[in-house]
Amino acid sequence: MTDPRRGAGRTETIMRTTLELGQEIGYAKLSIEAVAARAGAGKHTIYRRWPSKGALLLDSLLSLHEPSLDYPDTGDIVADLREQIHAAVDLLGNPPFGPLFQALVGEAQADPKVASALNERFISPQADKTVARLEAARDQGQLSPAFDLGLAMAILSGPLYFQFLITQEPLTHEYVDRVIEALFNGMGEPA
Amino acid sequence: MTDPRRGAGRTETIMRTTLELGQEIGYAKLSIEAVAARAGAGKHTIYRRWPSKGALLLDSLLSLHEPSLDYPDTGDIVADLREQIHAAVDLLGNPPFGPLFQALVGEAQADPKVASALNERFISPQADKTVARLEAARDQGQLSPAFDLGLAMAILSGPLYFQFLITQEPLTHEYVDRVIEALFNGMGEPA
Repeated sequence: MTDPRRGAGRTETIMRTTLELGQEIGYAKLSIEAVAARAGAGKHTIYRRWPSKGALLLDSLLSLHEPSLDYPDTGDIVADLREQIHAAVDLLGNPPFGPLFQALVGEAQADPKVASALNERFISPQADKTVARLEAARDQGQLSPAFDLGLAMAILSGPLYFQFLITQEPLTHEYVDRVIEALFNGMGEPA
Repeated sequence: MTDPRRGAGRTETIMRTTLELGQEIGYAKLSIEAVAARAGAGKHTIYRRWPSKGALLLDSLLSLHEPSLDYPDTGDIVADLREQIHAAVDLLGNPPFGPLFQALVGEAQADPKVASALNERFISPQADKTVARLEAARDQGQLSPAFDLGLAMAILSGPLYFQFLITQEPLTHEYVDRVIEALFNGMGEPA
């Protein structure tokens, strides 16, 4: 009980079981009780560390360690945005990441603690990477100096979230390219 | 039992009870059982009409009949977009609509039938209104003829959904104005 490696090993087992069972039966049907039974752990052992299903889903998602979400910097902002956002939609469009992330956002709608942990530990660090890459591009004169980079980040991500969470149509690279082009070039002059 | 008005009256009572109880205890805690008890209806009566909590939330949302989501057409596309989207964020930012819509989107992440009904009965008709208003503006030369109007709709809505569902920061009129401006003017020329 006092060997920290044993605790870490058990934590990993529980997160791996969450991912396996979630893919088998779907995250909607996944319960902490079912994870406990499959992992051979006590229900209370899980609840002590993860007070809610959403908390367990978040740690399991973060355990995936996705290096593909890092930003390239080749000096060409459009090419780099395309590459990174294509990688992001490939993750969202496939297991294990996609269905898990969708379930996690669903839990976040009912549980403010899950929502704030998701923002703090995943959304906000990802947004910071996007903003940092845009900032470098602005410093190189590839973006209008006045443009609000946080807003650019929201315009790049928002339509993808809209499609992923609301219309639930498949995300494609072609759609990403159209969003990027629209963001750079605008829709036309207002009257 | 065969008087259709009695059925309609009961349906209305159940939807009104859903809205009242959801506002009192929060939609996350709302169960069909609790609605049944408060409305003095049998649980099976509710399940016969609404197979899931999400289905009940959707009908309750649609029973609100929000005329403010219709589009004005003054001939000025920017002014009309601003007016309509300001009204939409006021709805999203306040009860009864906002918390109910958030809970419904949460349910949609776990229940594909709820997701498709939400799209068919609410999201898609709203998107069609936006696209129709943009189309009129394009015909009047206020938008670039080549611009994809469905994409414009997604760029106008996406950042708001991102903020509403993911970062969960308050939606403001000022944010809407910045999204509209960015969409019209673009972020700058790519290198």
